[in-house]
Amino acid sequence: MTLKTTDPAQTPEQVFTITQSERESMKGHAAKVIWLTGLSGSGKSTIANALELALHQQHKHTYILDGDNVRRNLNKDLGFHPESRSENVRRIAEVALMMKDAGLIVIVTCIAPFAKDRDAARALIGDAGFIEVYVSTPLAVCEQRDPKGLYKKSRAGLMKNMTGIDSPYEIPGQPELVLDTRVCSVVESVGRILGWLEQ
Amino acid sequence: MTLKTTDPAQTPEQVFTITQSERESMKGHAAKVIWLTGLSGSGKSTIANALELALHQQHKHTYILDGDNVRRNLNKDLGFHPESRSENVRRIAEVALMMKDAGLIVIVTCIAPFAKDRDAARALIGDAGFIEVYVSTPLAVCEQRDPKGLYKKSRAGLMKNMTGIDSPYEIPGQPELVLDTRVCSVVESVGRILGWLEQ
Repeated sequence: MTLKTTDPAQTPEQVFTITQSERESMKGHAAKVIWLTGLSGSGKSTIANALELALHQQHKHTYILDGDNVRRNLNKDLGFHPESRSENVRRIAEVALMMKDAGLIVIVTCIAPFAKDRDAARALIGDAGFIEVYVSTPLAVCEQRDPKGLYKKSRAGLMKNMTGIDSPYEIPGQPELVLDTRVCSVVESVGRILGWLEQ
Repeated sequence: MTLKTTDPAQTPEQVFTITQSERESMKGHAAKVIWLTGLSGSGKSTIANALELALHQQHKHTYILDGDNVRRNLNKDLGFHPESRSENVRRIAEVALMMKDAGLIVIVTCIAPFAKDRDAARALIGDAGFIEVYVSTPLAVCEQRDPKGLYKKSRAGLMKNMTGIDSPYEIPGQPELVLDTRVCSVVESVGRILGWLEQ
């Protein structure tokens, strides 16, 4: 006989009466996860904010799950080594899925540098409800913007594991959208995402 | 010079234009977290389901954050030792706070056996938006119901760390509501929570 701790896999999933479908009906729109991936400084948060504003004006129910903010609360126990980055993305994907289940249009801004983690997020959330937006602003431009001063710190050797400098960013292979903020304005970026949502 | 990994505390919090207040206005009601605590089998999920149904019929925007289900997804890396239980409650509280920020009425069903963890959840979410509901059904009744067969397994020595058997449950000191399902029907329980929400 093996002594075990309670294993949640042994307990049946709790199924509740109200589902995503009823919540979507009440809200008047489909629930989605829009995942903005790209380097620090690429413009993810700026696009997310403008997108949420536009959706809110259309009376759509949104939430921004911001990677930096989540690292201050839910994921404050995680660092920046590869396995911690994967766990960070896994947890964000799980929360995004629950918020989608709640009927929301969830806008995720998260570097999510590894393809396998983004693919796992897509597999978890489901292809139909997942829009991967690659904000493709090149490193040189992001580094020039350096809104948080992180590239400067990284180049000065004051910080380790900076994506694009001493930690890799794997370019998305088949994102639904690619937005290069050098040539695509914030308004145009939002327009392209809204266009995709309306498809 | 100390080499550090990127420290999120060094980066300013991202602040977005649309806030909880705008989301509440769109939804037409205040966002809240209703936390049902109590032993396994006490009736938390049954009350949560009936409460969500009632709120949905009032066109209120809800989500049930179910402790058992969260252990199958977001918290599937956690076990049932005291420190894992605390981390389980911490993460649920963080997600509940984000969902409240999204404007939802969040119904949490989670044993949350330790007072310090429930108090931390309340402190995080804020007193005004937090309703602690102690589902006080006594152990003997929960054990008789044993909807998941966990008490039986625990008594047979097939399982460790079962709350109420070989892991403690600390009774809430000042919950907003106490519901003993021996004497309080599901309909009455829901009515009492709705009454509290309308205050």
